[in-house]
Amino acid sequence: MKIYDVIIIGAGPAGLTAAIYCGRAKLSTKLIEQSQPGGQVNLTEEVENFPGVFKTSSKNLIDIILKQVNDLDKVEMEEFKEVSDIKYDNNNFEVRGQSLDGKDFSSKSKALIIASGAQPKKLGLKGEEDFTGKGVSYCAVCDAPFFKDKDVVLIGGGDTAIDEALYLAKFARKVKVIHRRDALRASGILQERIKSNPQIELILDSVAVEILGKKTVEKIRVRNVKTNKETEVDCNGVFIFVGYSPNTKFLEGLLELNEEKYIITNEEMATAKKGIFACGDCRKRPFRQIVTACAEGAIAAHSAEQYLSQNNV
Amino acid sequence: MKIYDVIIIGAGPAGLTAAIYCGRAKLSTKLIEQSQPGGQVNLTEEVENFPGVFKTSSKNLIDIILKQVNDLDKVEMEEFKEVSDIKYDNNNFEVRGQSLDGKDFSSKSKALIIASGAQPKKLGLKGEEDFTGKGVSYCAVCDAPFFKDKDVVLIGGGDTAIDEALYLAKFARKVKVIHRRDALRASGILQERIKSNPQIELILDSVAVEILGKKTVEKIRVRNVKTNKETEVDCNGVFIFVGYSPNTKFLEGLLELNEEKYIITNEEMATAKKGIFACGDCRKRPFRQIVTACAEGAIAAHSAEQYLSQNNV
Repeated sequence: MKIYDVIIIGAGPAGLTAAIYCGRAKLSTKLIEQSQPGGQVNLTEEVENFPGVFKTSSKNLIDIILKQVNDLDKVEMEEFKEVSDIKYDNNNFEVRGQSLDGKDFSSKSKALIIASGAQPKKLGLKGEEDFTGKGVSYCAVCDAPFFKDKDVVLIGGGDTAIDEALYLAKFARKVKVIHRRDALRASGILQERIKSNPQIELILDSVAVEILGKKTVEKIRVRNVKTNKETEVDCNGVFIFVGYSPNTKFLEGLLELNEEKYIITNEEMATAKKGIFACGDCRKRPFRQIVTACAEGAIAAHSAEQYLSQNNV
Repeated sequence: MKIYDVIIIGAGPAGLTAAIYCGRAKLSTKLIEQSQPGGQVNLTEEVENFPGVFKTSSKNLIDIILKQVNDLDKVEMEEFKEVSDIKYDNNNFEVRGQSLDGKDFSSKSKALIIASGAQPKKLGLKGEEDFTGKGVSYCAVCDAPFFKDKDVVLIGGGDTAIDEALYLAKFARKVKVIHRRDALRASGILQERIKSNPQIELILDSVAVEILGKKTVEKIRVRNVKTNKETEVDCNGVFIFVGYSPNTKFLEGLLELNEEKYIITNEEMATAKKGIFACGDCRKRPFRQIVTACAEGAIAAHSAEQYLSQNNV
């Protein structure tokens, strides 16, 4: 079996940029993606805060980065392959998993770059799973246009949640924000914008209990955590923004993860295990943007290149 | 005097990206640049490893980022203004300096983002200053085309130096690399490429002593550090790659710097002094690329926004 210099797991902005830098460093590189390239960028429509790229569609941004990867003959990409586990043996990593048609695959490398990303957290509410795609959404930018002039409920209170509430208010008639505490956690400027927007209403000290409806969402049952009183709020949609879960299950037993299951690295993107680097949303990090994911991918590739040349593996 | 939310010092990739993120966060922002926007990007011709931007001129990349900044009405930019010192008084920072015509200026803000960059280190050789621009260069990509089919000497042994040697070899007839130790510090793959390139010759265990010539460089005197013997090497150009000096002199007394005068920050780009953030090449960091500078600018702006809203300054 061919032993690659580097296997990169995940083809979002972090993994794709790592591939550009690995390819340019003349490392033989395999990039494995569980679905299509792009990662969470695929959940948005437009990108206008990526420096150097003037307001463009998310698809276009990813297409350009993909072309940069594909122009490097050292990088092979495989899509729709999900990694299930990784073995370390004889100084090599063996990455194993299944492709979409259920067939097993296996690839070996001397170094690993984990860029497997994260996904929105689910609340586990009664009705949440049944109504996903039928009124329950985890991405305002993707789904807000479906709720034009309708009433929606949003669950969450951090910066992301409030950003999404402001976005939703451009489409929906009314956005009711349910938050379990007596004040939002979002930054002051976002809070001011929420308060000055007449379409947005806060339902504080409250938690969602159950999502109700026939074919699609019709209402949500909410409990006030101070009075324990339950009420039903009419709505056509429920948007849930309560954080992210990193895609790191396949690393259990191989790498130590923090209590939220994120990968810990140093500033060089090196994990505690020699030869394994991590970048992007699967890593504990302060600010989740496309440009920060890209930068981490570049650093991880540079560190992997240094590891390979200095350790002569 | 108007008090801005944020003053950003330096309009390279880090400072410009910080300006995009500050402007989008609705912070009143002043961006002060000592010469023209672009920073060290102006020292290169083409950029092809910036994700999302397919091979382009450095000028074009900076022009796009500038347009992104200028589209935000919250950001004012001032060029050709050099900062000389910063006072902290009454919870505000006062940034003072001189414009190109010698006039004093002064601006105040609640938070500061330092993105003042770095510049190539000089060796202090006899003849180095006199021949700068007349054969002595600190940027192969800028000046290599002037040395087509000529002989050049390169001083340095790290990754950057060796990268530049390989670049120079595309133009020059012969590239002689002078390095003070008995082996290069560059990574293995770069060393292999050096060794397999017949145009590149290593002069190890050696230091440059003096650059000689009439109107332009004609030769360089070199001393072997083991034998102390001096020899003269004919050459038309001398390229010097011995590291960078951060542009941080104006911060002395305000911020603690490391022994190489770089600014120390945490992962959120916060310095030890409340309200001051730093990003890009003026900061101690592992991998100096345009995309990593941009990412740090985004993080610094986000941290400044959080500082302003959480501290209610």
